[in-house]
Amino acid sequence: MVGYAFMGAAHSQGWRTVGRVFDLPRRPVLAAVCGRDAAAVRAAADRHGWAAAETDWRALIARDDIDLVDICTPGDSHAEIAVAALAAGKHVLCEKPLANTVAEAETMVRAADEARRRGQVAMVGFNYRRVPATALARRMVAEGRLGTLRHVRVTYLQDWLVDPAFPLTWRLRREHAGSGSLGDLGAHIVDLAQYLAGEPLAGVSALTETFVRERPLPSAPTSGLAAVSSAGTGTVTVDDAALFTGRFTSGALASFEATRYATGRKNALRIELNGERGSLAFDLERLNELWYHDGTEPADHAGFRRILVTEPGHPYLEAWWPPGHGLGYEHTFVHQARDLVLAVAEGRAPEPSFADGLQVQRVLAAVEESAEKNSVYTPIAV
Amino acid sequence: MVGYAFMGAAHSQGWRTVGRVFDLPRRPVLAAVCGRDAAAVRAAADRHGWAAAETDWRALIARDDIDLVDICTPGDSHAEIAVAALAAGKHVLCEKPLANTVAEAETMVRAADEARRRGQVAMVGFNYRRVPATALARRMVAEGRLGTLRHVRVTYLQDWLVDPAFPLTWRLRREHAGSGSLGDLGAHIVDLAQYLAGEPLAGVSALTETFVRERPLPSAPTSGLAAVSSAGTGTVTVDDAALFTGRFTSGALASFEATRYATGRKNALRIELNGERGSLAFDLERLNELWYHDGTEPADHAGFRRILVTEPGHPYLEAWWPPGHGLGYEHTFVHQARDLVLAVAEGRAPEPSFADGLQVQRVLAAVEESAEKNSVYTPIAV
Amino acid sequence: MVGYAFMGAAHSQGWRTVGRVFDLPRRPVLAAVCGRDAAAVRAAADRHGWAAAETDWRALIARDDIDLVDICTPGDSHAEIAVAALAAGKHVLCEKPLANTVAEAETMVRAADEARRRGQVAMVGFNYRRVPATALARRMVAEGRLGTLRHVRVTYLQDWLVDPAFPLTWRLRREHAGSGSLGDLGAHIVDLAQYLAGEPLAGVSALTETFVRERPLPSAPTSGLAAVSSAGTGTVTVDDAALFTGRFTSGALASFEATRYATGRKNALRIELNGERGSLAFDLERLNELWYHDGTEPADHAGFRRILVTEPGHPYLEAWWPPGHGLGYEHTFVHQARDLVLAVAEGRAPEPSFADGLQVQRVLAAVEESAEKNSVYTPIAV
Amino acid sequence: MVGYAFMGAAHSQGWRTVGRVFDLPRRPVLAAVCGRDAAAVRAAADRHGWAAAETDWRALIARDDIDLVDICTPGDSHAEIAVAALAAGKHVLCEKPLANTVAEAETMVRAADEARRRGQVAMVGFNYRRVPATALARRMVAEGRLGTLRHVRVTYLQDWLVDPAFPLTWRLRREHAGSGSLGDLGAHIVDLAQYLAGEPLAGVSALTETFVRERPLPSAPTSGLAAVSSAGTGTVTVDDAALFTGRFTSGALASFEATRYATGRKNALRIELNGERGSLAFDLERLNELWYHDGTEPADHAGFRRILVTEPGHPYLEAWWPPGHGLGYEHTFVHQARDLVLAVAEGRAPEPSFADGLQVQRVLAAVEESAEKNSVYTPIAV
Repeated sequence: MVGYAFMGAAHSQGWRTVGRVFDLPRRPVLAAVCGRDAAAVRAAADRHGWAAAETDWRALIARDDIDLVDICTPGDSHAEIAVAALAAGKHVLCEKPLANTVAEAETMVRAADEARRRGQVAMVGFNYRRVPATALARRMVAEGRLGTLRHVRVTYLQDWLVDPAFPLTWRLRREHAGSGSLGDLGAHIVDLAQYLAGEPLAGVSALTETFVRERPLPSAPTSGLAAVSSAGTGTVTVDDAALFTGRFTSGALASFEATRYATGRKNALRIELNGERGSLAFDLERLNELWYHDGTEPADHAGFRRILVTEPGHPYLEAWWPPGHGLGYEHTFVHQARDLVLAVAEGRAPEPSFADGLQVQRVLAAVEESAEKNSVYTPIAV
Repeated sequence: MVGYAFMGAAHSQGWRTVGRVFDLPRRPVLAAVCGRDAAAVRAAADRHGWAAAETDWRALIARDDIDLVDICTPGDSHAEIAVAALAAGKHVLCEKPLANTVAEAETMVRAADEARRRGQVAMVGFNYRRVPATALARRMVAEGRLGTLRHVRVTYLQDWLVDPAFPLTWRLRREHAGSGSLGDLGAHIVDLAQYLAGEPLAGVSALTETFVRERPLPSAPTSGLAAVSSAGTGTVTVDDAALFTGRFTSGALASFEATRYATGRKNALRIELNGERGSLAFDLERLNELWYHDGTEPADHAGFRRILVTEPGHPYLEAWWPPGHGLGYEHTFVHQARDLVLAVAEGRAPEPSFADGLQVQRVLAAVEESAEKNSVYTPIAV
Repeated sequence: MVGYAFMGAAHSQGWRTVGRVFDLPRRPVLAAVCGRDAAAVRAAADRHGWAAAETDWRALIARDDIDLVDICTPGDSHAEIAVAALAAGKHVLCEKPLANTVAEAETMVRAADEARRRGQVAMVGFNYRRVPATALARRMVAEGRLGTLRHVRVTYLQDWLVDPAFPLTWRLRREHAGSGSLGDLGAHIVDLAQYLAGEPLAGVSALTETFVRERPLPSAPTSGLAAVSSAGTGTVTVDDAALFTGRFTSGALASFEATRYATGRKNALRIELNGERGSLAFDLERLNELWYHDGTEPADHAGFRRILVTEPGHPYLEAWWPPGHGLGYEHTFVHQARDLVLAVAEGRAPEPSFADGLQVQRVLAAVEESAEKNSVYTPIAV
Repeated sequence: MVGYAFMGAAHSQGWRTVGRVFDLPRRPVLAAVCGRDAAAVRAAADRHGWAAAETDWRALIARDDIDLVDICTPGDSHAEIAVAALAAGKHVLCEKPLANTVAEAETMVRAADEARRRGQVAMVGFNYRRVPATALARRMVAEGRLGTLRHVRVTYLQDWLVDPAFPLTWRLRREHAGSGSLGDLGAHIVDLAQYLAGEPLAGVSALTETFVRERPLPSAPTSGLAAVSSAGTGTVTVDDAALFTGRFTSGALASFEATRYATGRKNALRIELNGERGSLAFDLERLNELWYHDGTEPADHAGFRRILVTEPGHPYLEAWWPPGHGLGYEHTFVHQARDLVLAVAEGRAPEPSFADGLQVQRVLAAVEESAEKNSVYTPIAV
């Protein structure tokens, strides 16, 4: 695993736990974690249960005892590491967004395609597909329970930038993060919306905004943060919020909002799908619940029902606790690890693929293009 | 009152009840109701408690014993009746949308301005300002509880057109309704969003769609419905759904969605405002509740709180029941009547004025223009 | 109508509105309201729309032009007025609780039985049977949707006595109110539970408590309040809270709680019924909703669904607004008036009858007896 | 660890994870798991990450390399194992209920007291104290945010026995489980209610019921299940549901309900506390939320607020994910392990102690006694 911050901790929890909960043909071994700071990576290895620590990702991928490389770094290093790891014959799991640019993502897809011919697998980490409730939603859509789709509306609302005194971290600089709310939150909801709808977006019309353009530098300055003003502040070079509407290829309409300024909303990834035969709704802040309206029921008894997604027949749940005993955020990484291990063992290409990651990247690029061009409707490149 | 269908019934309930609940300087007398079908209007007068029935609105406004004319007809007749009533010296309440076109609305505003100089008042019926919870929300915004506004997101979701067999009523023809979801539902949420924000929209980017373009003719065909196909169907000439994003003049972002295809959503007018200091949320399906997040509270104890808007200190509530005994939809019309009667008695111009109604009409026109021009961002005319 | 305080206002709203909304064979005329204070009752008549005012209820029931007497006074005068009104040939609607004692209630039932033979009707005002959602719940139970009943749990939580400085009103003295939370709130939930269950309670075990035993006298002292302490306070002689468990005759278990000390709960009448085939839940603070779990559904898609009880097929709703446009508290009185007028017109005995009111009184008496006898299980007298 | 079924899996997850998430002075090592079936326990060791497997708990506690014994067996073996482990110098964690009888629990408390003098610790596994939301609730009560307590109402509702065809497992036989819903669910809510209230119950009045008295035998019969009827069924000898009311020592009132027949309720442990200054409410089915009403706020802005208990300042949360990224059921076992390891390292007596477990047992005994004696109010033995 490369990287050991928030995502690294979450992925470690997934790798450590998956073989203890699910019946797998192969149980993952946590071979080595990699980071630039030797002491810190050594501590992270000890904390998270990795057998070894490396300070050079090239050394990591050169090791013979490693089959799979999990990339948890910021987006600007994804392409280089992933392409090298695939070239080295490793399976690869790469955190989202797949890359900071479409061009990088295209390179990665080519590398994954070549590796696929050698039997390797590559997967991008859109972990919110692995919430049991979203997986159940996908199953229900695939069963035809919504019928012709009419509307998808999605928000991903957080509030950690509301305070103008919050410092200028790497996530607020384009050269590191690629974009702001758009790449961080928007990538998740674009992927989830397309996954649940079962079809891609055809085009988008977008508005983006940076509400607070100057922020104080972090006390321990992130290397490479330029544009320092005399007042000890720096410029925010990414979007604070992105709103966009769009059309799916089937003609269904979509609306998206990603922001870090929704005071009081901590992790409000909310999605609702309305089809001719039914509707589904989900809120990540209540991740054990899926709301379902069966439009074919008699009006007298119809209503949105709260499915507590903790039944043995629900996705991933056969391995966990009795009904009503809910799961948490990190379980998505256990499930992601499970699906990836199964794909490796069975020689299948896992989803979401790098191609799926590229397609999301193209949607994000169209959003940025539309926002620059006065919101004009912008088709998604294919 | 002119018109006696759904809106006529609701307005009648308001006029009948207001003097029984509120202390008013003048108690309304239900003098006469007007409609084209003599038998039907006579029955409506008897049903709803009007002393007389008229079949010609010109006769109605010619009566000396009538001070105020309440217009509850479809939008295509608003301008003519309102202008005439104002010219006849009557106060006027006109249902929303104020008119079907900006030009008509401008004429009405001019008439209202002239009448105002003669001491008459004119008001447009955006009744959702009169839900105690929205009125409380406005009060809280005006008190500065949200601080600098960042986001407003609003939906108005209904589902009565999901069935393709639903017939082609007047609401689905442009010549009568002006537009579809946009004028019916969108007008409400544009007004409410601007009212609560306390500022106008500066511009919008929009998508509209008509999902089902041919529908069966109603069994009792609405007069004037043209374009009948050989199969006994007719063409829907209005939007089924309208999505738009926008910017407020302060720079806050807004998103809007109006649709009649959200399966399972019956009357889901939902609005949320996020400001630097706090947030508010409201759902018309639970109209006695306002959700408030106070962003200045310590994080350990902060959260969205459910204010049950039934306390004596809440707007309009001093006249109703003890705490926790909720009100319903029709109370908005009682409150509207109260505010209008007080304005008349006190010689004040009531809100929302015809100018407010015109401004909403301009937003709707910008939405339609943007939708026609590939969603390009379109400023609101001033 | 006798009495014109909170209940009088609510009943007036019901009588005024019912004929404007429902198709009735006879439309009620608000002939006269009665109270002891001539000026106040005159003002109430004017306010609430009664044609005349009376200061002696005996004069009221002597009037030939009055067919029905609606009793909205405190419980200590119910029996005398009701018995006299029935003897005078009037139909009678009596607010709950039917009486302050079982003995009074028995007298009233005898009077009602005799009057019934003369074609008169008598009804007790358990208005919460007339919330569309509870009426729908009753219909669903009667259809067998719950199967064998296992559990009923009910609370009625208010908080207006939390402050020890709240004054000693008539509701806190046994000689006027009969009991405290028990008769005020407990009567409602006992009736509603038995109505929805479709069967009576067999016995109860109870705890009651008076948390604050001395309270300041009201500034305008209620006549007859004795036991004034030297400090300007008086003794609370009723229960502040009553908790009881019980068994239905079928063997289902029940739990009840009535209190005025549930800080933050304003009108939380909550009831849930669990049967072998399904469950229903209702909360008066969200009175347009009924929650239904269909236990026969596959576990994968089962869940409590929120039925928005605003569809034309729902009880009472054919006369009101389109789906999703909710009703309020006072509509229960419109519906009560409708059902009573129909019963009178059709010569049917309306429900809940005085006998139903007596049975509730017997349950309350058993609660008090159990509470006095160390909570021992106490059968309900038949 | 002794036992490796549902509780064993959950405890293993706790032990494996705690040192990876929390900074601890000592990191637990999973030395050995014990069970009677050699093959099964070997598989469990492998699955759950235990270094060794034992088939005799006496051998387990005889091992020198083991410091702490975690008892996850059914209640009938708790006393014997715990007493022996304490005598062998081990720290002990024992699942709830502490024992099947008060006498056994008393023996265990004596053993724990003696061991305490030797520096050992003993803890009972009421894991629901370790949900961050309940721990926060306890902190808020201790801070005085509720003021004088008036009401505590608690339910623990499940539905897995609704189907009469569900087989007769060990949990339905008194000789193994001690009691039914009472010991399984009731023990949890009695402990949690007393923990949150910060005071013990003084007495209770109870009803219990067994709705389905004969059930089919399990296909793989549990050893020792007697009373087999000719029809292949056996007798349920425990309660299906237990309802009780009670008084806290301060005079606050409490109500409890534990059942496995609440159709549609999967794990509805719901608790609400009402005090003179505020209220708190919690639902285990939404375990990342705590609802708080601050009764000292102005009525205009007061309401129950939903605290998303995922902030860094919330109990246990400094070690987990960013705000809004919720935890699940099993995290309670990680937190339990953390608190126990810290207690061992710091030489403190952990809570809940065996004495706390005994006191809960005494409440359950009083419930059973009251239920046998016609619900008469029964003081809790001290």
